[in-house]
Amino acid sequence: MRQRNKPWAKDKLAEYPQYVISEPEKYKGKWKEAFDKDQPLHIEIGTGKGRFITGMAKANPETNYIGIELADSVIVTALDRIIEDELPNVKLLNVNANDLRDYFEKGEVNRVYLNFSDPWPKKRHAKRRLTYRSFLEIYENILGDKGEIHFKTDNQGLFESSLMSFSEYGMLLTFVSLDLHNSDYEGNIMTEYEEKFSSRGSRIFRCEVQYR
Amino acid sequence: MRQRNKPWAKDKLAEYPQYVISEPEKYKGKWKEAFDKDQPLHIEIGTGKGRFITGMAKANPETNYIGIELADSVIVTALDRIIEDELPNVKLLNVNANDLRDYFEKGEVNRVYLNFSDPWPKKRHAKRRLTYRSFLEIYENILGDKGEIHFKTDNQGLFESSLMSFSEYGMLLTFVSLDLHNSDYEGNIMTEYEEKFSSRGSRIFRCEVQYR
Repeated sequence: MRQRNKPWAKDKLAEYPQYVISEPEKYKGKWKEAFDKDQPLHIEIGTGKGRFITGMAKANPETNYIGIELADSVIVTALDRIIEDELPNVKLLNVNANDLRDYFEKGEVNRVYLNFSDPWPKKRHAKRRLTYRSFLEIYENILGDKGEIHFKTDNQGLFESSLMSFSEYGMLLTFVSLDLHNSDYEGNIMTEYEEKFSSRGSRIFRCEVQYR
Repeated sequence: MRQRNKPWAKDKLAEYPQYVISEPEKYKGKWKEAFDKDQPLHIEIGTGKGRFITGMAKANPETNYIGIELADSVIVTALDRIIEDELPNVKLLNVNANDLRDYFEKGEVNRVYLNFSDPWPKKRHAKRRLTYRSFLEIYENILGDKGEIHFKTDNQGLFESSLMSFSEYGMLLTFVSLDLHNSDYEGNIMTEYEEKFSSRGSRIFRCEVQYR
């Protein structure tokens, strides 16, 4: 995602510690304390401007959400959305997905969302894809039994390589749509990227997989 | 596939016992005797008019092929192709795929091809799909270790349900293309159906899965 540099972003994130958790390792094993209600926790890796995670939080008040995004000049827009709606069930982490095990105990997360992740199309960059086996191992280490990944993308190559990666890792494919916007799937919350590219005719691929 | 009734089809099939094996149970465990050469055996279930299986046999003389098709008025066209090219490495069986275990020993087949199988789109007909778990069990019983299924279709719903069925059965997805004709996959032999529908713009889905 192209992003303008926003030198003030870091400062703004720091101004809202109730929404942007600055030392997430302190919550490891006790994330329920960060939220008003003790309920299932779903995280999105690569939250971007937060349209998906805030849309989900509004639609599903019985779930807690954490949006994770490394780019501070992007995640500030997600923060704006949370401030505006005063959402009690969504927090943001301005951290790297590689370090998730430092922030969550095994079993503390119930679901991982990956939306329009960077496709890293070159073979030599395959390890950077968020569905590469090293990442699947990270997610497994924070998810509970039968933990789920919900993944969507318009990138055919990324979707193909991800299906193979999930299979190689032994995961169970419980849902797949090869044309989400022309399917009977209900309750889809679009990301900014999704709305833009699907309106230009891109096909959206989506699947749900489960550890077993 | 729409088919004209050909009352003479059965008689013609019987005239070429060197190509159409009339009592396949007699070859169970000794299919190598049916062919000139002792080499790997690949079978296609739902061979139709035989364009794929005869094309494969011509392109791969180091493999033996068996085309299986229940409709006699369709399989006679496959027979015509074999007669014309005097192909030594392809045979036909005019039998039902449900009975494959009566005709092949465990390990006797190295690969199963499923091409543009009937999609049976209604949920109550799911058991009739050739990728349903009861069929995966049949194939497993005639394939050897790490036996493979190579599957292609233009039917999105069938491809989606098949990916889930393979996964549920614990199979390994080793190849997937969500747009075969716009991929760098080489050596594709088209079926009659594939040529017709891809020329009308249908996207072709293809995958390879392996028992493990």
